[in-house]
Amino acid sequence: MASVRPSLRLLKPPFFRSNYGPRGLLRVDFFTPQSAGRTVRQMSDGLPKGPKLGNAGKRPVFGAKARLAVGIPFVGLLVYSMATGEPPAKADTLTIAEKDTLAKRESGVTEQSPMRLRMEAFIKQYQKEIVAALEKVDGKPFLVDSWDRPEGGGGITCVLQDGNVFEKAGVLTSVVYGSLPRAAIAKMRVNHKALDPDVDSLEFFVAGLSMVLHPSNPMAPTVHLNYRYFETADEAGNTSAWWYGGGCDLTPCYLFDEDAIHFHNTIKSACDKHDKAYYPRFKKWCDEYFSNTHRGETRGVGGIFFDDLDETEKDQEQLFAFVQDCLGAFLPSYLPIVNRRKDMPFTEHEKQWQQLRRGRYVEFNLVHDRGTAFGLNAPGARVESILMSLPLTARWQYMHSPVKGTREEKLLDVLKSPKEWV
Amino acid sequence: MASVRPSLRLLKPPFFRSNYGPRGLLRVDFFTPQSAGRTVRQMSDGLPKGPKLGNAGKRPVFGAKARLAVGIPFVGLLVYSMATGEPPAKADTLTIAEKDTLAKRESGVTEQSPMRLRMEAFIKQYQKEIVAALEKVDGKPFLVDSWDRPEGGGGITCVLQDGNVFEKAGVLTSVVYGSLPRAAIAKMRVNHKALDPDVDSLEFFVAGLSMVLHPSNPMAPTVHLNYRYFETADEAGNTSAWWYGGGCDLTPCYLFDEDAIHFHNTIKSACDKHDKAYYPRFKKWCDEYFSNTHRGETRGVGGIFFDDLDETEKDQEQLFAFVQDCLGAFLPSYLPIVNRRKDMPFTEHEKQWQQLRRGRYVEFNLVHDRGTAFGLNAPGARVESILMSLPLTARWQYMHSPVKGTREEKLLDVLKSPKEWV
Repeated sequence: MASVRPSLRLLKPPFFRSNYGPRGLLRVDFFTPQSAGRTVRQMSDGLPKGPKLGNAGKRPVFGAKARLAVGIPFVGLLVYSMATGEPPAKADTLTIAEKDTLAKRESGVTEQSPMRLRMEAFIKQYQKEIVAALEKVDGKPFLVDSWDRPEGGGGITCVLQDGNVFEKAGVLTSVVYGSLPRAAIAKMRVNHKALDPDVDSLEFFVAGLSMVLHPSNPMAPTVHLNYRYFETADEAGNTSAWWYGGGCDLTPCYLFDEDAIHFHNTIKSACDKHDKAYYPRFKKWCDEYFSNTHRGETRGVGGIFFDDLDETEKDQEQLFAFVQDCLGAFLPSYLPIVNRRKDMPFTEHEKQWQQLRRGRYVEFNLVHDRGTAFGLNAPGARVESILMSLPLTARWQYMHSPVKGTREEKLLDVLKSPKEWV
Repeated sequence: MASVRPSLRLLKPPFFRSNYGPRGLLRVDFFTPQSAGRTVRQMSDGLPKGPKLGNAGKRPVFGAKARLAVGIPFVGLLVYSMATGEPPAKADTLTIAEKDTLAKRESGVTEQSPMRLRMEAFIKQYQKEIVAALEKVDGKPFLVDSWDRPEGGGGITCVLQDGNVFEKAGVLTSVVYGSLPRAAIAKMRVNHKALDPDVDSLEFFVAGLSMVLHPSNPMAPTVHLNYRYFETADEAGNTSAWWYGGGCDLTPCYLFDEDAIHFHNTIKSACDKHDKAYYPRFKKWCDEYFSNTHRGETRGVGGIFFDDLDETEKDQEQLFAFVQDCLGAFLPSYLPIVNRRKDMPFTEHEKQWQQLRRGRYVEFNLVHDRGTAFGLNAPGARVESILMSLPLTARWQYMHSPVKGTREEKLLDVLKSPKEWV
């Protein structure tokens, strides 16, 4: 397996625009990754500085300059936090957020950088590629919001609403440095024995790219993608546990077998390059996870899903390479599908069926999705980013069921007993 | 406090119609309460009998005739179950379901009947009153579905969809005899010390009336109501713990102070008859419970909410009287409001705002409502009844926020810091 990955080769000059939001939404400057080998830095230096970190006095080595985007105020935006508190206060050692800030300023992001920085650079770069490709499909630009977390990290939320092709599309990156409380550590230990059970809190880092695209045309399927890298640090600020998770899945309202086959085939090829067992294993995991168990239906026709892939699976470089190839497979897996469906004729009845299926999508995301529940219950969560995944519109009709022999019924049959597509 | 309540006085001849459902929905016969003093019986005696109770052989005293609606098959309908299994098998004693069936057949429902039967008779009667009143407002009839549980109990689901006034309206009664697993008992013991912690399962009974009305006109508020009586039985089939819960709350998209004041005043009067402390206490509980905590907003302008009212609060007759008065206050609290709002002119912009508020309603019900979560996670749950509460249509728009000084913003201000209305 190649250990030199194309992550940094992909880095190109930034192309994000600053947009003006719809009614009531303030313009927000965004966080721009610079080209390869250069330190990621905040563009909005001219903005007034906010309050310093509460425990800044304890860490005299690094002033406000060395901390990533600390104190840039967000007017009108809540801060997205995946955990509850501040990083644990340590008088003598640096937090991983501080280490990473320093490393980026001193030597940029290279293949020798910690995985945290490489994953961050990779997903931000890939976010640009995807946004550019989708803008080409839609003809309408994405709105770009960026936000920082005072505790470290931040995110870029790219949204397209009421587009020509997409009713609602969100492509989000987020990077979070935070602290896991004891209860969360105990839960995670089930899968990661390297986690110390005897501490009250642990520093953690997570970087991920999330995407949900809801096209307007009922013949064009919704697609969801998420890839993330998680890491915890011990008291000395060294990596204690790390793992990758993610996947990508397709949710049609009207099923075209050729679409499902193409989608699965493309993903399978990416998986097969790394491990022939991955596709069948992660395809099954996807069908099981993305399930509206209360209705006995999967959310869609699946794809892949995995979580907790760590050193017990393969080494870090191999898994990073795998995640990169999965992410790299997205555009080739989805673009041909949306391009051949986006302009198909449809009836009012078909649009209505799409709305009902949108309702099922909402049900899964709000009732069953662990990520959504985790996010919404986290204090200070950035709700608008989390609920970006919901469709623009949805419908619930009492006791609706499709007429026998119709294409609507055919879809339900497949959702009730998932098929093997390749 | 009067202990003779109007519950049985209210009983009138049944007036439910059997309707035909929309596309694909089969006609289902329903369970009809007869007039006072007569045994409630199943109207569909002519239907073929289904399989008998699994452990029927152990209970030779009561054959198929004595068991309530056992074995009436439901083509196309799932059975609604609030608990997991069968009632605990007991060779020598009767289950409470069997006792109640026998009591109803032998002496009907009177004021000497167990509270289970009195509550069931009361809510079914009240369901009729409400449905009749709402049909008068709307001009369109409700669709009536009924269903039985093989383990005992059943329900009547009255639904009006795409009406003249109501976009979607559901008025449901359900009666469940079932068995609580050990984990559920442990949870409930927090509030009910009478529950025996040393048994593996407990028979339980619950009867409740639930209602959600979503009017089409954005000026007319959504209303929700639920009143329920819960009981558990010890090994000998005697009541071990019992309690009442419920409430009623209003969710406007456009706030008319006079509506909120009238609604709260009417409920307060019902509460004040029983305890002057009830209204303030249960009003606060309502604001706290019906809260989209992830958005820092209450769902609507509140009403009352309470749970676990048992002998530590007041005696059973007093609490039954209280619940009856609360339910009795519903029509006077809501009808004047919907009547003065249902034909008001509105703009496309106002309709859109309503759709966004509908989205928030969905968020509360799917993310926070304990009853919905409990129902959806119960095996064999009747999903269509549980999700009856969702609006016909809803909308999610990224980063939407109302323009300063508008009526939309005024509503949000109230939802962010609940007001005292009386």
